[in-house]
Amino acid sequence: MATLKLNADMGESFGPWVMGLDHEVMPHVDLANIACGFHASDPDVMRKTVRLAKRHGVGIGAHPAYPDLVGFGRRSMACSPEEIENLVLYQLGALQGICRAEGTGLCYVKPHGALYNDMARDPERFAAVARAVRAFDPDLPLMTLAMRDNSALKAQAEQQGVTLWFEAFADRAYDSEGRLVPRSRPGAVHHDPETIIDQARRIATGQPLTASDGSDLVLQADTLCVHGDNEESIAAVRRIREMLTTLEQAS
Amino acid sequence: MATLKLNADMGESFGPWVMGLDHEVMPHVDLANIACGFHASDPDVMRKTVRLAKRHGVGIGAHPAYPDLVGFGRRSMACSPEEIENLVLYQLGALQGICRAEGTGLCYVKPHGALYNDMARDPERFAAVARAVRAFDPDLPLMTLAMRDNSALKAQAEQQGVTLWFEAFADRAYDSEGRLVPRSRPGAVHHDPETIIDQARRIATGQPLTASDGSDLVLQADTLCVHGDNEESIAAVRRIREMLTTLEQAS
Amino acid sequence: MATLKLNADMGESFGPWVMGLDHEVMPHVDLANIACGFHASDPDVMRKTVRLAKRHGVGIGAHPAYPDLVGFGRRSMACSPEEIENLVLYQLGALQGICRAEGTGLCYVKPHGALYNDMARDPERFAAVARAVRAFDPDLPLMTLAMRDNSALKAQAEQQGVTLWFEAFADRAYDSEGRLVPRSRPGAVHHDPETIIDQARRIATGQPLTASDGSDLVLQADTLCVHGDNEESIAAVRRIREMLTTLEQAS
Amino acid sequence: MATLKLNADMGESFGPWVMGLDHEVMPHVDLANIACGFHASDPDVMRKTVRLAKRHGVGIGAHPAYPDLVGFGRRSMACSPEEIENLVLYQLGALQGICRAEGTGLCYVKPHGALYNDMARDPERFAAVARAVRAFDPDLPLMTLAMRDNSALKAQAEQQGVTLWFEAFADRAYDSEGRLVPRSRPGAVHHDPETIIDQARRIATGQPLTASDGSDLVLQADTLCVHGDNEESIAAVRRIREMLTTLEQAS
Repeated sequence: MATLKLNADMGESFGPWVMGLDHEVMPHVDLANIACGFHASDPDVMRKTVRLAKRHGVGIGAHPAYPDLVGFGRRSMACSPEEIENLVLYQLGALQGICRAEGTGLCYVKPHGALYNDMARDPERFAAVARAVRAFDPDLPLMTLAMRDNSALKAQAEQQGVTLWFEAFADRAYDSEGRLVPRSRPGAVHHDPETIIDQARRIATGQPLTASDGSDLVLQADTLCVHGDNEESIAAVRRIREMLTTLEQAS
Repeated sequence: MATLKLNADMGESFGPWVMGLDHEVMPHVDLANIACGFHASDPDVMRKTVRLAKRHGVGIGAHPAYPDLVGFGRRSMACSPEEIENLVLYQLGALQGICRAEGTGLCYVKPHGALYNDMARDPERFAAVARAVRAFDPDLPLMTLAMRDNSALKAQAEQQGVTLWFEAFADRAYDSEGRLVPRSRPGAVHHDPETIIDQARRIATGQPLTASDGSDLVLQADTLCVHGDNEESIAAVRRIREMLTTLEQAS
Repeated sequence: MATLKLNADMGESFGPWVMGLDHEVMPHVDLANIACGFHASDPDVMRKTVRLAKRHGVGIGAHPAYPDLVGFGRRSMACSPEEIENLVLYQLGALQGICRAEGTGLCYVKPHGALYNDMARDPERFAAVARAVRAFDPDLPLMTLAMRDNSALKAQAEQQGVTLWFEAFADRAYDSEGRLVPRSRPGAVHHDPETIIDQARRIATGQPLTASDGSDLVLQADTLCVHGDNEESIAAVRRIREMLTTLEQAS
Repeated sequence: MATLKLNADMGESFGPWVMGLDHEVMPHVDLANIACGFHASDPDVMRKTVRLAKRHGVGIGAHPAYPDLVGFGRRSMACSPEEIENLVLYQLGALQGICRAEGTGLCYVKPHGALYNDMARDPERFAAVARAVRAFDPDLPLMTLAMRDNSALKAQAEQQGVTLWFEAFADRAYDSEGRLVPRSRPGAVHHDPETIIDQARRIATGQPLTASDGSDLVLQADTLCVHGDNEESIAAVRRIREMLTTLEQAS
């Protein structure tokens, strides 16, 4: 069994505005999704975040987004596939430019916010992102949401010459198809630490979760998304890391 | 005698706004200074411009600027050296990201507008730009203004591990030190095509220009900046290109 | 019969980038839709455009848009009604601030691009724009697309305390409901000047147009949208103005 | 003796990024300097901040800045006087637009950051700001730094038809001319609460401060700038407010 990697959004400060406890969460994760200036971050924040990731041996992922700073990339925009392809290339390159100055480079790509969601829903947008990733570097994996059945997306990605990394969430409820229950629904987000750790363990070991309709749901995931927003989420990350370490030592 | 290369600012359109006759000037130049989104351009414009440059075998240069779109990068900003270093890295990377999708890459760096001027005046800002260029790729030349005496700047650049390319202007008057006469002064800009061609020929052959105080001025230049703004400037570029071709064939 | 007013988008330059022949079209129109900095324009362009409108006695309309400069406000964005209400208020105020310095003020509001289209389709967004307009100044009319039957929209606007001005197009084909035929369809845009003048005359006199399915379509319009993009469209504006003047003199 | 008013910067959040404890400081001040979207804030933040100010009966001031969001308006920019005049008008209008929706309006103008400093140093920029304020509303006071001798600035403002409000700081050291000691110097910023309260009392009662060279300095100030950044500064605001109330009751 391959080890489940922990990824977290990082470098989401902007100018004088601070967001996220990057210094506290970085020691506990494997992968840092670093904002590229379109929904958050700026060249100085990116430089500091890349340096921090490198110091902790954390893999650097580009976290490209729609050009919507005030909306934090969370609002869907009617961008054309060509626009999406080019704005992803721009952002991958920009972060790679910062990485060069720290003697490192990109490991993977995880689209952010509305772009991440739109890509999962719309094959044209998925293809646009995939074209950008492959053109930039065909060895870069593209992170996307793990579902009950990843085979169709895997087939599409293979055809487009891109490797996928599937991502799961320990703090979100799933429906029977493996889609996230929308945040507007009651019970969509888990707050109880035990529930979160249990869901993380199930995902890590391939055991079924209970979907929102009561059915069993097995997610095939390469990585688990964790959060460094506040002390509670940092505490959860630490416990998930300990649990994974225990699993590894036991295997 | 090495051939004088022609460089021109390109890719300065933005969103729906068109600037410059890139398609008309591209066939006649050697080097395209492509805007990187901070003073002009956007990912789509950059993609088209890189493709156009590649089609004509023109070398692609990054044209980074202060973050001032509405001011077109022409207004000096009190950025710190660290801010300058990082915003140059960001812009070099962004253009390189677009280049990858077209199977090409950066050949050189020419800062734009107020950043170009500030760098020439302020050793700290020069050092900041030089650090960015060297960190990005130590083989990338950095373009700067040719003066009567380039030795001090050459020494500084050598110490910082960066190669310089010196740039001259065929349509601008110079003072006796080899500085451009400010545009606000009468006679600062040449409009007569014969004067422009003559100055280009003198620069290409190492013959002296007449500085604004009547003294002789020899400029050691690697490249000549030409313009694709309008039909008159395109006509001048064509004539300068013919003159250079004639010189080469004669040598 | 009330006179059909001519409106045109103006002040769509931005920083160094020029768009539109504002000086040529301004003398021939009644209403200038002035961009407010979110999809185009900047404080300097707005100042010049307000001054130009005032000099020609042209009514000044705010032309607010989604915050999408590079996309020129043409891409729909998933903004919430509250976000739309506030960004419209911001833009109305900004243009009004510029107007004060020229001793004039706003006459009406016409949302731009994707916001205009989204408002026509989505009652929640329409209500958000209407709330902003009424809160800013309950006497400001809000311009929207004239349809075969304007009564539902009129009723909604009345309930919300906002007056509507209905707008028609002389150079666009309509379907039988009075919706614009999408630009992607053949025949969606009229290019023949005679066709355009004829359609303008029919709208001005309340005579039926022929809709895309061959049926008769009568549009109740207060204003006709004309364009100052290029010499051809300016020529059309001049001819439409002459036609309207002739009609007025005959009445 | 007129009462010294307390002013604080407010509404400096932006999109998802929070800055300042506006809810905690608002009840204790008289004047709220509200950012207008160029260095901080957005239409939604402005709306909330105006509503909060109105609820507490706090006067609303526009806090216009250079167009430099990532630099928080702290970096001087080489804007022309015309550009400054127009960007101030734009920002005053934008905030006034938001105020209208809450049934309130602007009470004064305080330029932010580098614009505030540049205006104090450069009569051309001061005149540009003054022109904007007078054109927008000749009754709006313009806030500027109190010096040992305010007479020259008062004369200039009178000539330009603008009223000045002079501002002092309780937590900053002054030189003998009444200029703020630069933050880079040791002792430039007071951290001891007793020192801050004592300086506030001296300013409120017209007693001399001790300037950095040991000389006496009397500042004629209309308002005192306080800060709502953190709990310490909020505590200082509360104590200054109590001290002022005690003074008023004693008078």
